[in-house]
Amino acid sequence: MKTGFTHLFIPGPTNIPEPVRQAMNVPMQDMRAPDFGDLTLGLFKDLKRVFRTDTGTVFLFPGSGTGAWEAAITNTLNPGDKVLMSRFGQFSALWVEMAERLGLDVEVIDVAWGAGCPVKEYARRLGADKKGEIKAVFVTHNETATGVTSDVEGVRKALDSCFHEALLFVDGVSSIASIDFRMDEWGVDLAVTGSQKGLMLPAGLGVLAVSQKAMAASKTATMRRAYFEFSDMEKLNATGYFPYTPPTQLFHGLRRSLDRIFAEGLDNVIARHHRLAEGVRRGVRAWGLNLVAEHPAFYSDTVSAIRTPADVDAREVIRIGYERYNISFGTGLAQLSGKVFRIGHLGDLNEGMCLTALSLAELSLAAAGAKVEFGSGVAAAQKWYAETAPACRIHIAAE
Amino acid sequence: MKTGFTHLFIPGPTNIPEPVRQAMNVPMQDMRAPDFGDLTLGLFKDLKRVFRTDTGTVFLFPGSGTGAWEAAITNTLNPGDKVLMSRFGQFSALWVEMAERLGLDVEVIDVAWGAGCPVKEYARRLGADKKGEIKAVFVTHNETATGVTSDVEGVRKALDSCFHEALLFVDGVSSIASIDFRMDEWGVDLAVTGSQKGLMLPAGLGVLAVSQKAMAASKTATMRRAYFEFSDMEKLNATGYFPYTPPTQLFHGLRRSLDRIFAEGLDNVIARHHRLAEGVRRGVRAWGLNLVAEHPAFYSDTVSAIRTPADVDAREVIRIGYERYNISFGTGLAQLSGKVFRIGHLGDLNEGMCLTALSLAELSLAAAGAKVEFGSGVAAAQKWYAETAPACRIHIAAE
Amino acid sequence: MKTGFTHLFIPGPTNIPEPVRQAMNVPMQDMRAPDFGDLTLGLFKDLKRVFRTDTGTVFLFPGSGTGAWEAAITNTLNPGDKVLMSRFGQFSALWVEMAERLGLDVEVIDVAWGAGCPVKEYARRLGADKKGEIKAVFVTHNETATGVTSDVEGVRKALDSCFHEALLFVDGVSSIASIDFRMDEWGVDLAVTGSQKGLMLPAGLGVLAVSQKAMAASKTATMRRAYFEFSDMEKLNATGYFPYTPPTQLFHGLRRSLDRIFAEGLDNVIARHHRLAEGVRRGVRAWGLNLVAEHPAFYSDTVSAIRTPADVDAREVIRIGYERYNISFGTGLAQLSGKVFRIGHLGDLNEGMCLTALSLAELSLAAAGAKVEFGSGVAAAQKWYAETAPACRIHIAAE
Amino acid sequence: MKTGFTHLFIPGPTNIPEPVRQAMNVPMQDMRAPDFGDLTLGLFKDLKRVFRTDTGTVFLFPGSGTGAWEAAITNTLNPGDKVLMSRFGQFSALWVEMAERLGLDVEVIDVAWGAGCPVKEYARRLGADKKGEIKAVFVTHNETATGVTSDVEGVRKALDSCFHEALLFVDGVSSIASIDFRMDEWGVDLAVTGSQKGLMLPAGLGVLAVSQKAMAASKTATMRRAYFEFSDMEKLNATGYFPYTPPTQLFHGLRRSLDRIFAEGLDNVIARHHRLAEGVRRGVRAWGLNLVAEHPAFYSDTVSAIRTPADVDAREVIRIGYERYNISFGTGLAQLSGKVFRIGHLGDLNEGMCLTALSLAELSLAAAGAKVEFGSGVAAAQKWYAETAPACRIHIAAE
Repeated sequence: MKTGFTHLFIPGPTNIPEPVRQAMNVPMQDMRAPDFGDLTLGLFKDLKRVFRTDTGTVFLFPGSGTGAWEAAITNTLNPGDKVLMSRFGQFSALWVEMAERLGLDVEVIDVAWGAGCPVKEYARRLGADKKGEIKAVFVTHNETATGVTSDVEGVRKALDSCFHEALLFVDGVSSIASIDFRMDEWGVDLAVTGSQKGLMLPAGLGVLAVSQKAMAASKTATMRRAYFEFSDMEKLNATGYFPYTPPTQLFHGLRRSLDRIFAEGLDNVIARHHRLAEGVRRGVRAWGLNLVAEHPAFYSDTVSAIRTPADVDAREVIRIGYERYNISFGTGLAQLSGKVFRIGHLGDLNEGMCLTALSLAELSLAAAGAKVEFGSGVAAAQKWYAETAPACRIHIAAE
Repeated sequence: MKTGFTHLFIPGPTNIPEPVRQAMNVPMQDMRAPDFGDLTLGLFKDLKRVFRTDTGTVFLFPGSGTGAWEAAITNTLNPGDKVLMSRFGQFSALWVEMAERLGLDVEVIDVAWGAGCPVKEYARRLGADKKGEIKAVFVTHNETATGVTSDVEGVRKALDSCFHEALLFVDGVSSIASIDFRMDEWGVDLAVTGSQKGLMLPAGLGVLAVSQKAMAASKTATMRRAYFEFSDMEKLNATGYFPYTPPTQLFHGLRRSLDRIFAEGLDNVIARHHRLAEGVRRGVRAWGLNLVAEHPAFYSDTVSAIRTPADVDAREVIRIGYERYNISFGTGLAQLSGKVFRIGHLGDLNEGMCLTALSLAELSLAAAGAKVEFGSGVAAAQKWYAETAPACRIHIAAE
Repeated sequence: MKTGFTHLFIPGPTNIPEPVRQAMNVPMQDMRAPDFGDLTLGLFKDLKRVFRTDTGTVFLFPGSGTGAWEAAITNTLNPGDKVLMSRFGQFSALWVEMAERLGLDVEVIDVAWGAGCPVKEYARRLGADKKGEIKAVFVTHNETATGVTSDVEGVRKALDSCFHEALLFVDGVSSIASIDFRMDEWGVDLAVTGSQKGLMLPAGLGVLAVSQKAMAASKTATMRRAYFEFSDMEKLNATGYFPYTPPTQLFHGLRRSLDRIFAEGLDNVIARHHRLAEGVRRGVRAWGLNLVAEHPAFYSDTVSAIRTPADVDAREVIRIGYERYNISFGTGLAQLSGKVFRIGHLGDLNEGMCLTALSLAELSLAAAGAKVEFGSGVAAAQKWYAETAPACRIHIAAE
Repeated sequence: MKTGFTHLFIPGPTNIPEPVRQAMNVPMQDMRAPDFGDLTLGLFKDLKRVFRTDTGTVFLFPGSGTGAWEAAITNTLNPGDKVLMSRFGQFSALWVEMAERLGLDVEVIDVAWGAGCPVKEYARRLGADKKGEIKAVFVTHNETATGVTSDVEGVRKALDSCFHEALLFVDGVSSIASIDFRMDEWGVDLAVTGSQKGLMLPAGLGVLAVSQKAMAASKTATMRRAYFEFSDMEKLNATGYFPYTPPTQLFHGLRRSLDRIFAEGLDNVIARHHRLAEGVRRGVRAWGLNLVAEHPAFYSDTVSAIRTPADVDAREVIRIGYERYNISFGTGLAQLSGKVFRIGHLGDLNEGMCLTALSLAELSLAAAGAKVEFGSGVAAAQKWYAETAPACRIHIAAE
């Protein structure tokens, strides 16, 4: 029988802060009540701050990030539209697959898993697209499968430098609210996230921010859609309502999690993610293991994908961690299966939790046959955390 | 400031039983953990019992009932397919609208709001469709806007009597798990419900049961789809997993709510809904008011739509109830706005709750100007409940 | 199997408001943490407002109101001290019994159950006690067994008019935070309550307010005590700590319930209790039944003890209510067993809940053989609630 | 702002398992309902299994372990009775103080803090007490302040070897349900625990098991008592009820925590505590620090009291841990203040949690000026956990 906490270190769903859990434990309510908008209008407003957009529109679709991907595509593009995408991990690959299924003409650039969005190649192809045939450019900001963060701003510059008018789609599912993301500044047109990552909620909401340009495109886009139709949402959201029954308990949780994000400060949230992630990476280095991310410029502050030694099956590491030590690591997906395990380090987290992940990873790696010195990764992370510790986190009046 | 319970009498979301609320208050977990299927496979199995199907396949889409409507259509039909639908309330109207948006050729039969599915007219048209151009027939089993239950079995007979092969789609959002529904016996091909009605959960899951015939159709159906794709779900669901992150907390709640349904007995659940609903209807009759449902054969056991007197604005009844008496009634939708308020009586309910609804409706009606004798509706319902009370509900050992 | 809410109408524990339930659902914490006092010091401060005392000291004993009774006695009196008490219900009787067990010389005045504290007789005896042998006078402010509220202020006047120095003990378990109580103004020395009544929490805390005079008495009182020792509490409470582990989850709930009380306004809370109680009493009168309380001056605004007709066993009413209609009424205690059932109407309550109690009482009475006209009590209460309804309870901006 | 879990490593309250938290999140209920005993009678029965007694009686007093101490004394002893006690930590000292306050003639043996109950000296004094003047012998089974476990069985043998009839009182607050304890086998007469330790609940219940001999003594014991009176409890507990309102939510939690204890197996629970504690101790040794416990025979499996280096203020370690790393360690009490910090390792715990405690202790110690090698304690514990890991904790069917 398992005892104690289940240590959750997958890259989403993330650990839910206690106050957020409290806030979701509500009875049901009438989503057509006259004061319902008091709750929801504030959510839309504050989510815009999370996306760092003043002019965009935020939608909350009951569903998942995958649903928000579909909403983004079907509302703004037309069947057969040419789009530019790159594939360097399981989630960017799935997005390509979705685009193809939905009838887009996808120009895919395959990149090694471990690299990020090929900004220069994007620039080249956009520059070559003199007729403006490319209607949209897709970037997976943080590839959750490989722990790689891409340069969205660079893609914006590539677009701008050739005056290209393609829409810029960004999958920010595992970056937004955790890694620096600037919708307006970077000219992102469609930014997708989900509730179960940096927003520290259960799965259940696909969250999508849409630029004015993309909203305009949605008025004429001819792709078939119904459930994910922007205009239905837009009309009812204006006063805080929804075209179908939304998961109100998640809204209460979202209210509380947004309050937490702004109480900490969004910049501080992002800085904390970086500091905690760096501790994990130093731990990995101390083990003598490699990240999938090829270069520090790609290192993700929300998830580290760690290559096991060649003779160690990563699935075994994960299995032992789960069965024996009550910890959930992320698995290696698709071509990384058996070669990689992942430590998610995003959301509501602190030093102690990251050290737990490292200490149990050491136990699991060792049990799976890896030559890892006990305590080595923990020590490297501790050193970093000690060096970078804020003098005092909470203020307590002198006794 | 409001004090005391908020009395929730909308036809969904419904009141969540305490044990179900408890069960949902869980930390997040890894939806790829090796034992995750222990939870989910049982849900699929037991949901089949709720749909009363042995051979069907059940899907749980993160989303809403509306999403499940879309899943049903896009997976089994082709663009331009002719379908037969009827419109007699807001929800059947919305379904028609969705079908049109998704590119179907919808043959709509408009019926007075207050009547149900025009079974004879369906039979006539199906009989006339010698070439089998009608690919699907849609029935809204329980029209939530009007409190009308339709004869699904009759439609099956209409299909069978002319050997018509159209798929039979049923919207059972506000009937399944509350009103008698028999998927296999009635030959339903696609049956839709949501989590927030008879399943007594928050909104967040679109639940869909699919017959073998419809599953076969999905293999060749050419309508564009991605998020709602059956085959992705089917493949992963087989071992208890999902193609994208599902709302695991709802699964824990669903486990508990299914346990409750079977502990009570599905037939008993249905009988209880009828008995409680009949009490409400007798109350309405005692007030001298009319239901929207035109005929007792149409009376819904999950929601009563009540016409206010001509000089009383139903919105005022609802507003007073909400502001002054902390009760949520359902509003009159579309053409019924201002003329109708609704009492939802489904899910986790008992006599006392129905009497609360009636007593507060009396207060709200009176305050809005209706001539309703205080206590009259309550008394009529009490009489019925007393006459039909089970001798003893719980067994308590002799002291 | 029971379905729907369990309707709770005992006079404590009372229904817990949802936000209070949320607040209590916390992980454990260190009750010696440096910031723990941030929580507890505010509780002591705000509880003083509830007791309406500026100069008193409030103690929170893990335990029950009975424990707080004992704390009050053992800290301020000496073995063999003469005290004046009156007995007119089960709880005043139990307090007498405790005083005797603890070694006091109790002068008991027995009064008919249904009357309250015999103020004039108290005045007579105090006036006759020229030597000041009576060290304390006890008053049960609200006798929960009979639904009788006594005149505490009158007892203070009786003491003052003969310049008697006895301590004034008040059992306010079922009155404080629900019925007007004024510690300082009435010169109460020891006021007892529990968490599970007007404070809308689970049982688990005995709450005691102590005047400066009683605190002074505690410095020399020689009765044996340890767990309930004031001085241990006093010393540690000063900085927000406790001499033994307190139930921190209740403190979080208390914080939220105090916030609610002050958001509504203590005077408004008291007025609401009166209004809701009066509705219940009018319902009882409409049934043709009598309260135990002999005179309107004694009517309790927190609980009504209702005599069943001579040929109807009140236990049967309660049993039927519980088994068949999922409602808990209070039972008749001691000599009232079988003759009385009680409706608790205190704490987090509204009109709808009181009407539920009345409608289910009608059903239960009828099933037990009482001749009660269905809807009659409900109608009487509805009339009163309608007449006294605030124009609008919540503010909703014009649509 | 603090983020992430608060790591709780005080020796109680302990971490509450999620299912136990779920179970406590209930609405209030009637503690006089006819089926209430269904819940409580099972608790009494199963608590006897935890105490390992067949013939004893278990009481659940709303209060704390301190209250249960008082109940044990006041129900079975007489004023002026001579009792034998020993003092070797803050909690044994407080028990002595209580006994004196309650009027016992306490013969105290002072022992160095770090040693345990002086069994031989007990034997000597009992042997010398030819007249049987010693009415009771007290043993603190696990001294929470020093992390010392004493030999209760040895004291029983001391009593038996001289045929002494004194009652044997045991404070098992931080041992019962975590460290081997055998009431019947060891002839314990009064065994005290609280809800917030091995029972994994919030504080709020003093739990007391009473032998038949002690029950017999309670019939004639003359010490004043009321709230803690056995006979009131005994009478009502017989059918599952209580003399005053009990904290029903804790009962639901207790039901679930007992279920967990027996699902794991009480012997397994005890073995787990030993294994996890040994890991912590090996970590401490690796740091080069000493436990307060003088000898391995005294090592407590529920709490380790750790001496900081002479030049490091332990309060600083604790403060830094709390403020900077969101961890609560136990403080050094009384004479150990500033010299000792404690790691509680009892209740719902696993390897990862113990490693978290060690890794954050290393960071806190270092920040407070101690020369502790990062990762050293963690590594020592990991080695132990790896060597002693069960092959597979949970059964997962082969994929």
